[in-house]
Amino acid sequence: MKTDSDNIIIMAQLNPIPGDVEYNKNKAIECIKKANEINADLIVFPELFLLGYPVGDILTRYPFIAQQTQDALEEIKNVTKNTGVLIGFAEINKEKFKKPYYNSVAFIQNKQIKKIIRKTLLANYCEHNDYRYFESADINPKERIIDLNGIKYGIIICEDAWNDFDFFEKNLYSIDPVKETAPLADVLICPASSCTRAKKEQLKHNMMIHTAKKYGVKYIYVNQVGANDELVYDGYSRMYNENGELSAMAKGFEEDFFTINLKSSNNIINSLPKGLELTLNSQKEFSLDHKPDLARTYKSIILAIKEYFKKNGFKRAVLGLSGGLDSTVCAVLLADALGSENVLGVSMPSKLTSDESKNDAKILAENLKINFIEVPIKDMHDMLSKKFEGIFEQTQKYFSERYSNSFTQDNIQARSRAMILWGIANEFSAAIPIATSDKSELYMGYATINGDMSGGYAPISDVVKTKLFALARWMNENRKNKNSIPESIINKPPGAELAIDPKTGKTLLAEDALMPYEFLDEVIWRIENLNQSINNMMKCEFLYEKKNILDEKTKLKWLNKFFKRLNTSLYKWYITPPGPVVDGRSINKIEFRQPIVSNINYSK
Amino acid sequence: MKTDSDNIIIMAQLNPIPGDVEYNKNKAIECIKKANEINADLIVFPELFLLGYPVGDILTRYPFIAQQTQDALEEIKNVTKNTGVLIGFAEINKEKFKKPYYNSVAFIQNKQIKKIIRKTLLANYCEHNDYRYFESADINPKERIIDLNGIKYGIIICEDAWNDFDFFEKNLYSIDPVKETAPLADVLICPASSCTRAKKEQLKHNMMIHTAKKYGVKYIYVNQVGANDELVYDGYSRMYNENGELSAMAKGFEEDFFTINLKSSNNIINSLPKGLELTLNSQKEFSLDHKPDLARTYKSIILAIKEYFKKNGFKRAVLGLSGGLDSTVCAVLLADALGSENVLGVSMPSKLTSDESKNDAKILAENLKINFIEVPIKDMHDMLSKKFEGIFEQTQKYFSERYSNSFTQDNIQARSRAMILWGIANEFSAAIPIATSDKSELYMGYATINGDMSGGYAPISDVVKTKLFALARWMNENRKNKNSIPESIINKPPGAELAIDPKTGKTLLAEDALMPYEFLDEVIWRIENLNQSINNMMKCEFLYEKKNILDEKTKLKWLNKFFKRLNTSLYKWYITPPGPVVDGRSINKIEFRQPIVSNINYSK
Repeated sequence: MKTDSDNIIIMAQLNPIPGDVEYNKNKAIECIKKANEINADLIVFPELFLLGYPVGDILTRYPFIAQQTQDALEEIKNVTKNTGVLIGFAEINKEKFKKPYYNSVAFIQNKQIKKIIRKTLLANYCEHNDYRYFESADINPKERIIDLNGIKYGIIICEDAWNDFDFFEKNLYSIDPVKETAPLADVLICPASSCTRAKKEQLKHNMMIHTAKKYGVKYIYVNQVGANDELVYDGYSRMYNENGELSAMAKGFEEDFFTINLKSSNNIINSLPKGLELTLNSQKEFSLDHKPDLARTYKSIILAIKEYFKKNGFKRAVLGLSGGLDSTVCAVLLADALGSENVLGVSMPSKLTSDESKNDAKILAENLKINFIEVPIKDMHDMLSKKFEGIFEQTQKYFSERYSNSFTQDNIQARSRAMILWGIANEFSAAIPIATSDKSELYMGYATINGDMSGGYAPISDVVKTKLFALARWMNENRKNKNSIPESIINKPPGAELAIDPKTGKTLLAEDALMPYEFLDEVIWRIENLNQSINNMMKCEFLYEKKNILDEKTKLKWLNKFFKRLNTSLYKWYITPPGPVVDGRSINKIEFRQPIVSNINYSK
Repeated sequence: MKTDSDNIIIMAQLNPIPGDVEYNKNKAIECIKKANEINADLIVFPELFLLGYPVGDILTRYPFIAQQTQDALEEIKNVTKNTGVLIGFAEINKEKFKKPYYNSVAFIQNKQIKKIIRKTLLANYCEHNDYRYFESADINPKERIIDLNGIKYGIIICEDAWNDFDFFEKNLYSIDPVKETAPLADVLICPASSCTRAKKEQLKHNMMIHTAKKYGVKYIYVNQVGANDELVYDGYSRMYNENGELSAMAKGFEEDFFTINLKSSNNIINSLPKGLELTLNSQKEFSLDHKPDLARTYKSIILAIKEYFKKNGFKRAVLGLSGGLDSTVCAVLLADALGSENVLGVSMPSKLTSDESKNDAKILAENLKINFIEVPIKDMHDMLSKKFEGIFEQTQKYFSERYSNSFTQDNIQARSRAMILWGIANEFSAAIPIATSDKSELYMGYATINGDMSGGYAPISDVVKTKLFALARWMNENRKNKNSIPESIINKPPGAELAIDPKTGKTLLAEDALMPYEFLDEVIWRIENLNQSINNMMKCEFLYEKKNILDEKTKLKWLNKFFKRLNTSLYKWYITPPGPVVDGRSINKIEFRQPIVSNINYSK
């Protein structure tokens, strides 16, 4: 029990459901009651907690939801006692000429709403579209201060904290709510719904250290945890002391009712995923050393899968096991997220599937203890090939321009497999099939529509191939059961086993159809992180070039091929199932849209 | 040739390609040369013409494109003579704390860029996300004036024109660029990229009349034409005189190099689609009389298909012909957009397909003179059913919860058909399959993933079922070849012919599986236009209730069913192929996003 000289703050690091105000409210009330019991000074919820985040366009289409969040405040009011409550909601704004809502936090105590603090800086980039719905509030520093038990808390809401003029090289806004608020406060409190992305943790950490030190204040950050469709919230709510030292840290990737004592120096400090602190150094150039980000990547995808299934009422996953890297990594992630018993791996060999691949798939399933069935598709393939002969003969009467070298045969196989997986998912309760496409291949459109691209969720759609290899190795070392992934799978050069390479007589390898993955992944990195054109890239030395001889002509050929394929992949991106955002930037629909009909000169 | 007392303005109502600066620039130069030849006073291009519109997030990811538009200005400069040029581009903004671009118009004459006018009001709702990229400029009324041959032109860019305080009941912005600019001008010029939507034409028309009269100025509106993915630009550039009378109107739904003479009262006035002027009256409540909007709907979808195919390099469409309304309407639209010879209708009867349906499909194809083949799927269905027996037996060992009444059989049929269509598209050059889902059924998720939902384009995905019936009748009356659609198709109650209704022993009808379409479509209308909750709707009398007895309990049951189905359809919306926005509001990804995991209490 707290003594008079303690100041107890509860970080209610919780996992809301977007739009489910009733659920979020009940969750809040339960926590407030617990906080009351220990007579905490304050309990803090993540940004917009009653509404959930992200909200998409639901506030616009269903405006009554904002009212629901306001009504929920009334109910919450009634359970409050001495313990102050800071909780986010969608505040209806009836002012003329303004957006219809504020992104607000209510301060409630002793059955009264004592203050409402509104967000000023509205993120409107990447996954954020706050400016579609919310009005930017005046900073009003005095209004942001809560005076409670002798301590002055200054409230800044998520993006409000991200505009320090000394810290950032480039600022998005001309005003800084922290600058105005911090001088009036002993402690800054930042309720946030900040999703995890590559390299963001270091930035966040450094920024918060900077702010705490600069103003000589304690800095408390309370983040949402969970995952909603594509966005993963990692939690890791925390406190820095006046010297910028991390002095408390909640758990990551799970809910935490986390208690800190402002007066104590013995608060719990849970640790970040191993290696994460190292990635700062790799920001400036592309690196094949994905290691520092693998634990975070693994945890992010696991949580994304868990939440997507749970929140949509699914339990089981069905996926094709080809013996290749993509489906293998997906299988491990699914087993860890859902439990082995809830995963069904389906080996669907065709005549092009090597015995090695078949065997690898089986061993993998055994190692993972997931359910496993074998459904050869030779009969389907034969039947369909024959049927298509007749169909094409009929069609040719009308459409004379027939490809001499079409992908029809490749696609029949991929689509037969998807047909089987969707059939199983339709027949058995709470099951969905999994799309196993990776980010490198999605960029290249190297995936079959209604085939391997298709599924209810796409766990690795934001993970490039070279990182997938690293992730596979990492999982072999770091999972409780070591070496579940057969070495042969990791060592095998990727290929879809859908067609024969006429040059070699063997199944076509992906790198022959595309380009070396080391090169390909660096192109992606340069687009997403440096926004480079082909000309820019021609002037830079790629990592691949440091290790291999690459003449200008081939480099240009690869770059042109890359962007040509990218341009024809836009349609595939449009219909790609949701999958977790993992990288710093992605082609996920939530953050990046490019018209399918667009035609860009990427050369510059 | 113009005389000294004439003032000739060219409305360059053109169709740009998003991101294709080279193409757009060349198009512009060609028109400028023509304008020079006739010694026009001024040539005006649509908003952001050099960049194309919409642009999605390409400015953020590929910033060099903005530079490309600025460089294009330099080239354009060199072809200008006495004829002034007003052309839109993405102006790079290096100011600190500001968005990186302005949505600007350059005024160029005699090889000089004489003025740059920037957009102030930035649309950030529905299909618009201008605030993600563009900085809002100060109004600067004097800077908006171009003094040319004795006439003062005031330039307002698209959304700048949409905030009159007298005209609109609710204004989005506190400032009105027109109010500040019009008093300084003789003529207002509004370059726009304004897509067509239900009821927008009347609003636009009334607003422009209002503005012209209020300020006693001529009002010139130059709109983009064409279609990009989902958005259709109808053109209809025009002029109103000082009395608010329409005094010139370019063509609709096609490019127009449209010449007007400010001094003449004999400018050409092309007419709007028939009936369109009537729809104002139907704004306030749902109506089954879709007639006033059918010509516009037809023209919009035709143009959308044409442009999507052309800009993506496709020529041919492949679609399943079931003998039902959806595929029938799609077939007519495709034949008219692409030419009959470029459409292949594939009849794919199963054992559940009635002779009538088979026959209807055939007659339709004959009437439309499209290519037609018949591919019975009984063999596939039998083979797959048998194969699935074995698969399900294996699976059942692991997943015990098997549905007693699954959709597996229904889906096998729909997916077999999609497999055939995609196979044909893969084998023959420049062909894509068509997704035939309509808006009512997409709302209800009444469509099969990788089945009828799947395709390269979804022409009727924003047309509700009751409107489709009306459209079918309208096309029978208004197309050159009358009555191409057999009456039996229009009169047949909709049903997917995928399953037997145990109650009747006949194939299950859609309205039995869902609810009456008249009711369903009104629910959609009330969500999209009035943002109503279930409670709101319970208090309103539906059109259906005026004609049928409907007790409260059944009404509530239907509404609950509607929203329950809607909630589980969100995933399907996420992967729906692009299709033209037609209605006032839609569930098209370009304008509406709702997290799949969201869980909304629609009751209120």
